[in-house]
Amino acid sequence: MLGFYSTNEIYQRAFIHKSFNQNTNNERLEFLGDVILSFVVSDLLFFDNKEEEGFLSKKRATIVGRKHLNLIAKKIIPETEIKTNLKKIPENIYGNTLEALIGAIYLDKGIHQTRGFIKKHIYKSEFLQQLKDIDYKSKLLALSQKEKIQITYRLERQKGPDHNKEFLVAILVQDKKVAEAKGNSKKEAEQNAAKKAIKIVF
Amino acid sequence: MLGFYSTNEIYQRAFIHKSFNQNTNNERLEFLGDVILSFVVSDLLFFDNKEEEGFLSKKRATIVGRKHLNLIAKKIIPETEIKTNLKKIPENIYGNTLEALIGAIYLDKGIHQTRGFIKKHIYKSEFLQQLKDIDYKSKLLALSQKEKIQITYRLERQKGPDHNKEFLVAILVQDKKVAEAKGNSKKEAEQNAAKKAIKIVF
Repeated sequence: MLGFYSTNEIYQRAFIHKSFNQNTNNERLEFLGDVILSFVVSDLLFFDNKEEEGFLSKKRATIVGRKHLNLIAKKIIPETEIKTNLKKIPENIYGNTLEALIGAIYLDKGIHQTRGFIKKHIYKSEFLQQLKDIDYKSKLLALSQKEKIQITYRLERQKGPDHNKEFLVAILVQDKKVAEAKGNSKKEAEQNAAKKAIKIVF
Repeated sequence: MLGFYSTNEIYQRAFIHKSFNQNTNNERLEFLGDVILSFVVSDLLFFDNKEEEGFLSKKRATIVGRKHLNLIAKKIIPETEIKTNLKKIPENIYGNTLEALIGAIYLDKGIHQTRGFIKKHIYKSEFLQQLKDIDYKSKLLALSQKEKIQITYRLERQKGPDHNKEFLVAILVQDKKVAEAKGNSKKEAEQNAAKKAIKIVF
């Protein structure tokens, strides 16, 4: 009765890409999983943040974005589980399979447990910080290359004990310091500095 | 505790457009209502239809589309309830307010009752058939105008008792019959014929 699937069939189905079977595949489950993911993430963001809609939408776009889902799916879904008829599995098939899996969990266990799965693996994923990191540093790099400006990162200072270090990183534009920021790791400080530099320079 | 609103405040808030109050408006509720609507409609479609994902997506697009939401909102939300700072309320503000209202109902009553509201007023709305009707006849008209082809509808036959009439309508392209179709009303037969003609002629 699970939307025309049996419980066993449903999880198997979630891993079947349409290239493997034109008729029996995970596309209906993906249709369902996609909106459940958006709903649950929006709900969590709504209660966790007092900010306005623009802020929530931007956060949601990152969390439910292809890039993020592909990273998570590659971690939690063994490649051998995914059934395709392709030589190499394209990135997006991972994320789509994760959405289909969410659809399967929902049909089998209901919205409450699906919410738990999404919260643990997606909403609080370890990859989110990494994605944000990619954002500012690569954004700064792209902007500086476009404007033919030379950007340098310089570690100004580090202090504190090993478990609570603080780093101060400066960003130089053609040898002139334009921004500096702190962070609990060198990488974090660089990201924070890149964020500032983008605002100041561009 | 309802996502930082009290119960009373929440329904009032749903009707406040941002032009009326930049800080206290319905945008957060709309953010939430929009995804709840998509989730509930997708879930209902999934269980009501055995068809593949493309079919479900197309149906969903019509049901949660601006045009449809605006029609429903205009019927169930009194114009005087909507708080804006605009001389005339633009069409889309109706639909957006309806989404905010869905967010408010969800926060106040939970997903189960919100589902009931969506099912009654949106999923089974009287406007859906009307929207489909607009689709084929106006699509055919647009296509024929573009190609400078003259289209005529002709009632070929009607039979049966009043409560169960059957109409047969033909479509002529420059006086040559290209398609005909039956329906329980003249309008329905015309729509069905237009659908056929689009496939045959264009």
